Amino acid sequence: MADAITGGSQSSGNEPTSAGDRRMMTPADVRLACRSGEWTDQTSGLAPGFAQANLVILPQADADEFHEFCRRNPRACPLVEVTASGDFVPRRIAPDADIRTDLPSYRVWRNGELIDEPTDITSLWRDDLVAFLIGCSFTFEAALLDAGLPVRHIELGCNVPMFRTNVECEPAGKFHGQLVVSMRPFRPADAIRAVQITSQFPAVHGAPVHLGLPEQIGITDLQRPDFGDAVPVQSDELPVFWACGVTPQSVLMSARPEFAITHSPGCMFVSDIRDSELQSVCP
Amino acid sequence: MADAITGGSQSSGNEPTSAGDRRMMTPADVRLACRSGEWTDQTSGLAPGFAQANLVILPQADADEFHEFCRRNPRACPLVEVTASGDFVPRRIAPDADIRTDLPSYRVWRNGELIDEPTDITSLWRDDLVAFLIGCSFTFEAALLDAGLPVRHIELGCNVPMFRTNVECEPAGKFHGQLVVSMRPFRPADAIRAVQITSQFPAVHGAPVHLGLPEQIGITDLQRPDFGDAVPVQSDELPVFWACGVTPQSVLMSARPEFAITHSPGCMFVSDIRDSELQSVCP
Repeated sequence: MADAITGGSQSSGNEPTSAGDRRMMTPADVRLACRSGEWTDQTSGLAPGFAQANLVILPQADADEFHEFCRRNPRACPLVEVTASGDFVPRRIAPDADIRTDLPSYRVWRNGELIDEPTDITSLWRDDLVAFLIGCSFTFEAALLDAGLPVRHIELGCNVPMFRTNVECEPAGKFHGQLVVSMRPFRPADAIRAVQITSQFPAVHGAPVHLGLPEQIGITDLQRPDFGDAVPVQSDELPVFWACGVTPQSVLMSARPEFAITHSPGCMFVSDIRDSELQSVCP
Repeated sequence: MADAITGGSQSSGNEPTSAGDRRMMTPADVRLACRSGEWTDQTSGLAPGFAQANLVILPQADADEFHEFCRRNPRACPLVEVTASGDFVPRRIAPDADIRTDLPSYRVWRNGELIDEPTDITSLWRDDLVAFLIGCSFTFEAALLDAGLPVRHIELGCNVPMFRTNVECEPAGKFHGQLVVSMRPFRPADAIRAVQITSQFPAVHGAPVHLGLPEQIGITDLQRPDFGDAVPVQSDELPVFWACGVTPQSVLMSARPEFAITHSPGCMFVSDIRDSELQSVCP
């Protein structure tokens, strides 16, 4: 399941494999490169300063319950936009975009099983599909780096370690399951700064949900993440845990809806919204 | 030294010994009760909703260096007001007050030694004295309680435990020494909330300076505070440390200025400024 959700065995890392000039692309440039098939890789580091989003697409029959699940679990599933049934344009965060073509890669699920990983879902689109665009931690990681805080998995060029917890999400109909968290280690004073900084980004998971005592949330071995890559935690550091955007995918796999489409791991939707627009005035 | 600073052996606790109706007194009522000699006890819980302040009075000859010390150590010494030389009225935070009479009790120091503990310092006043009014954690504790967070030493009715750390303050001339911190234990999710809440009160010590790994700041035994009372820390809790207003008194005792006056432990100056006025819009 870890591989199905986060692509553990595929090329990891938060650096695109392309030349540095891709970093200077606009969000529209990135989307057009995806649309043409030129870009099919992870999006971390592309169009810096602009927010990226997790994607979940469901038929209308399941969308209302999933919408309610997101509303009840805003730390794990902070909704940036929900499209109208059948509408493939995320009109608030990228009015020129087409979510059927503008992500590098998609995963198609039937009854909870991964059945395909295309780079274009135009042929699969239906008039009853609803797209959920969910905030992504890239935004707050940019803010942490801007503040001079070291982010371990970015330094190491690997995926963030993620853990399934013993914390049950608030269920909504068929959608239920355990909160998945990402972990970033910090020295105590930096952990306090990280709380302050990420509190300002409620639309991208916001403040940590836990720190310092992982066993309290059912995490027994920090070196064995359920998803992503292990990173070292030094003796002078505390593990700090944020609600993770993998939670909805994990919940989808348990709920086994008849049909669903998500982004491929790390292959996010690049929006026209600036990271700073997701920063609240106060936490 | 612990007793000299915090009055460890005197009546402790955050509850005044008076009847509940004193809690409804206005700040001016409290100050007048001090002025008349009617009230000579601790001020915790009096005039709820209004900010209280630590007091340090120094001759002009030492005041500039101490002022610079406060500026360099704003977490430990957040200045709420500094009076003009010889002026005994804190014009910003209580324009009707007289700091020579309006605190319940004072401590008089010569060359770093405690020599007297009067309830009125009018006869000691000099035209060259400068009063420093320094924010007090009562304000953020009220905010923590308002948010439903349990504050252990208040629940237990004892003084907050305080520890001398191995963290050197930024020195300024003769004024130097180690940061003193107060400790409040919280479960991890509450510790995160406590960071968020106290970050909003930079004028009263602000966010914690440390949490979770006390040995990193030279604290080896949480059950042996240097000042105040020990409180239990449960296995599912993290110790959270804030810069403490005892720091300037501790520094004064080391610097041994020729003459100084401070408030007696817990016998703060009650201002006309509301706690909410010390809350910043953003941390």
